[in-house]
Amino acid sequence: MYASKYHINTLKEAPAEAEIKSHQLMTRAGMIRKVAGGIYSYMPLGLRVLRKIEAVVREEMNRAGAIELLMPVVQPAELWVESGRWEQYGAELLRMKDRHQRDFVLQPTSEEVITDIARNEIHSWRQLPLNFYHIQTKFRDERRPRFGLMRGREFTMKDAYSFDRDEASAQASYDTMYDAYMRIFQRLGLEFRAVAADTGAIGGSRSHEFQVIADTGEDLIVYNPQSQYAANIELAAAPCLIAQRAAPTAELVKAATPAAPKCEIVAEQLGRPLADTVKSIVLATEDADAAKPATIWLLLLRGDHDLNEVKTGKLPGFENGYRFATETEIQDTFGCVPGYLGPISPPGPVNIIADHTVANMSDFICGANQEGFHYTGVNWGRDLPEPQSADLRNVVAGDPDPQGGRLAIQRGIEVGHVFFLGDKYSRALGATFLETDGKPAMLQMGCYGIGISRIAAAAIEQNHDDKGIVWPRAIAPFEVVICPMGWHKSETVRNAAQALYDQLSAQGVEVMLDDRDTRPGIMFADWELIGVPLRITIGDRGLKDNVVEIQTRRQPEADKVDVAQAAAVALQRLEAL
Amino acid sequence: MYASKYHINTLKEAPAEAEIKSHQLMTRAGMIRKVAGGIYSYMPLGLRVLRKIEAVVREEMNRAGAIELLMPVVQPAELWVESGRWEQYGAELLRMKDRHQRDFVLQPTSEEVITDIARNEIHSWRQLPLNFYHIQTKFRDERRPRFGLMRGREFTMKDAYSFDRDEASAQASYDTMYDAYMRIFQRLGLEFRAVAADTGAIGGSRSHEFQVIADTGEDLIVYNPQSQYAANIELAAAPCLIAQRAAPTAELVKAATPAAPKCEIVAEQLGRPLADTVKSIVLATEDADAAKPATIWLLLLRGDHDLNEVKTGKLPGFENGYRFATETEIQDTFGCVPGYLGPISPPGPVNIIADHTVANMSDFICGANQEGFHYTGVNWGRDLPEPQSADLRNVVAGDPDPQGGRLAIQRGIEVGHVFFLGDKYSRALGATFLETDGKPAMLQMGCYGIGISRIAAAAIEQNHDDKGIVWPRAIAPFEVVICPMGWHKSETVRNAAQALYDQLSAQGVEVMLDDRDTRPGIMFADWELIGVPLRITIGDRGLKDNVVEIQTRRQPEADKVDVAQAAAVALQRLEAL
Repeated sequence: MYASKYHINTLKEAPAEAEIKSHQLMTRAGMIRKVAGGIYSYMPLGLRVLRKIEAVVREEMNRAGAIELLMPVVQPAELWVESGRWEQYGAELLRMKDRHQRDFVLQPTSEEVITDIARNEIHSWRQLPLNFYHIQTKFRDERRPRFGLMRGREFTMKDAYSFDRDEASAQASYDTMYDAYMRIFQRLGLEFRAVAADTGAIGGSRSHEFQVIADTGEDLIVYNPQSQYAANIELAAAPCLIAQRAAPTAELVKAATPAAPKCEIVAEQLGRPLADTVKSIVLATEDADAAKPATIWLLLLRGDHDLNEVKTGKLPGFENGYRFATETEIQDTFGCVPGYLGPISPPGPVNIIADHTVANMSDFICGANQEGFHYTGVNWGRDLPEPQSADLRNVVAGDPDPQGGRLAIQRGIEVGHVFFLGDKYSRALGATFLETDGKPAMLQMGCYGIGISRIAAAAIEQNHDDKGIVWPRAIAPFEVVICPMGWHKSETVRNAAQALYDQLSAQGVEVMLDDRDTRPGIMFADWELIGVPLRITIGDRGLKDNVVEIQTRRQPEADKVDVAQAAAVALQRLEAL
Repeated sequence: MYASKYHINTLKEAPAEAEIKSHQLMTRAGMIRKVAGGIYSYMPLGLRVLRKIEAVVREEMNRAGAIELLMPVVQPAELWVESGRWEQYGAELLRMKDRHQRDFVLQPTSEEVITDIARNEIHSWRQLPLNFYHIQTKFRDERRPRFGLMRGREFTMKDAYSFDRDEASAQASYDTMYDAYMRIFQRLGLEFRAVAADTGAIGGSRSHEFQVIADTGEDLIVYNPQSQYAANIELAAAPCLIAQRAAPTAELVKAATPAAPKCEIVAEQLGRPLADTVKSIVLATEDADAAKPATIWLLLLRGDHDLNEVKTGKLPGFENGYRFATETEIQDTFGCVPGYLGPISPPGPVNIIADHTVANMSDFICGANQEGFHYTGVNWGRDLPEPQSADLRNVVAGDPDPQGGRLAIQRGIEVGHVFFLGDKYSRALGATFLETDGKPAMLQMGCYGIGISRIAAAAIEQNHDDKGIVWPRAIAPFEVVICPMGWHKSETVRNAAQALYDQLSAQGVEVMLDDRDTRPGIMFADWELIGVPLRITIGDRGLKDNVVEIQTRRQPEADKVDVAQAAAVALQRLEAL
């Protein structure tokens, strides 16, 4: 491709609303242009990146035996009513009416349509297993779309759906997809982790997220550098940090802690480590009978630990959701304002659950259920009953892994998710097949998503510097850019640049030749911003000595290379990237 | 691909609602499945066809220098308000509100978004010409979606938009696209015509439709088999069929024609040819001042001719549209009921326009403005004033072409349209660039559409037989199907089939190997329905004599071919298709 016949329009400034690097850089590099909040046009350079990601995903899905089809963007409400999601899905589901006032949705995902296809197309166990996928435009009406492609409203996603006879076969389909995802993200050239993930309301134990490692990621990944273990912090088991509870050594004392509604202040006032304090979190669960009062729960965490909301949601009694208790409920139960609550003799009825670590603490500090006072020297069994305990907290870096070593935490961007669905949708839509015994059985389903457009953004979050984007070779819009110094003035330069362009193109390399009449500084800055992995600079001065300059995007300085060897060296460098 | 690992699900019966062959056959072949009215899932076989069409279109667009980008499906209303189409576009424009009650549309086309891009991206004449295109999902909320992919609501379209400095350059861009379209439809293997088309409200003379020839087409194409001339009947000039008006030979007579409100009945009652009669069509145009009465027009056509509504809309005085006159208006103007109206002395004010042929008729028959009566022997100049004349009628087959020869008519399916837009959108959205003199000038635009999904349907309308689809090789889902007789029983057959599969695949041929455990009759019927261009049948009986059977989809009988030559012969046959 010749730059003069292409559309390159870089910007000095990113829009003020662009908060993260990928949004800033894709806009500045001219890869995306905003059409409305969370809705973008992919400009030519950006679309090339998208298509390359799609191609890798498609190849690996096909290799894994998945079959591509294409389901529509606009879907009839009827199917969503059947699955129950017409009611359950929140405002992110964009609903609309056609000219005949019939209800439709813009698809955020295609479980309903694929299950409808399955119930019409799959009749017999002989047809199974089957795995259908499509790469399609999706829409989620985010309340506050931002971060460019990272959290857009209209986006491109690959979603696959497997259909199996039974759970064992479904597990094999799941594993096949897991392996395909591993290959996909390896081929894309991204540093990533497959991470055990929460299965949410559907249950089951099979769910993995594929997280691109980046400091700017929204997800926290718990992993063990010495093992294969990795899990989303939502799911990662937090170990008890105290192997055995020590015997009491201190008396129970009610200490004045004026204006100390937080553990940090209490610890400071009392001159004790934060790890000696216990924080009280009061939650409420509603009874199915709305007339009955809510059940009040007191959850106890060490002062330096944070509540894990996903784990909390899985506690017995929390099946139908929970909320923070109201000030009135707290007053009724503890006779005290928040900030000074504790497990010792609360006046009202309350279920107390201690985090595993708290359950093994001794001589600890907690609220005294009296404003301005905390107890010190609190000991289980002596000052209050032995607690019920559970895993309530988020892992923190340095926690020991029960399997050995210590846990670390890093941030990630979720770009893929594999999920065992069971018969949730097949049951709702009546998608059965005939088993060998001639009797109908429910299809076992799995679903497997990859955020195509999100990968582009995540790749940038992981790979950029002060000058701009540093694309992995596999998804760079062009692999090589040739920058002739004086294309319009020097026939020698023009011939050398053209020859190199022809040689590399003949090898299947995607080359951009910048034949624009621009100054070298501007030309270089453009391609560093755009992030092309390899640059070859050709000028009269070098050609006098038969050399051109070759520089990978991460190299600080260019290498001088004999012009006759330039194509071969460029190919080697590309291969090494 | 192996059939056992693919999804093939043919149906014996087409759905009752499928009125046309392409809809019936794509459904029966398992290529599409209905999700809602006018909304389909492309099943694996159907998607392969779609992707092949896309690939040809993309290659030729790129070759023609157009640059691919991707504009969104969901577009903000603001841009449509700016262009005026938010008001002008009818109910086919699906409008919706997001969660913040902001207005959006599902794009039926992207003039607004591309012009918005152009006004932000194009600053200087140095950047021009530019041609951007995308292949994207579109939505038109048809009142009565039917005919499968032929008139769907959600569909795939390639639309390109050119930007030029001036009309001369825009004409060159138009010609480049015209040439690209010629190559595209040639490569797709379709019989087609580029047809001069009406330019509608935008005016100008540059517009061509690309029509796939098919008896089931909705469009009528006028062409001259002896020349390059072809035009949509909406536009095709209809010649005057009478070179010179003959002198009167008959007296003006008022003849009783009871219960004869149509020319056919009048001609029969009077024992005269239909071509001697003149039909009266009464139209009305509204005055800009709504208080004023409508202007009444009497249009005169030979009894065997039909009114051309597009030509009528271009008559002076018809700029703001027209309608048929009401019965009251007709009574007020002619003092008579419809069916007996004529141009001789109507009591009320009326503008009379005769078709060119009518203007040269003599001794003709027309209504007498009296129920049950017609005049015979009517002659211009003698019985009524010389008429104003215009081209009002549709061409009929056999009309002489003023350039020589005679005109013929065939039916076509519009699959592409190239169109010069001028500055309609650039002016509305203020899309200017700086000319060499530093002054802003309006961008000159062209737009160029191809109905990707519609091509699949049109190809079938043109290429099918009693057994099913007959795909042109270029867009067939698979090029060759190998049908082993006894894959599961005979190792000899299995080895021969596998060897042939490997040989052809290595040559880049897209081969399907039908390894299903089905009876030959069912297997053959499936592939004839699906329309694979070449079938190779391999059985133990043939292999004893070292032969396999090769049969193109249109061949009534298979050829026996030496097994060692089979791959080479198959390739030759494919090339010859």
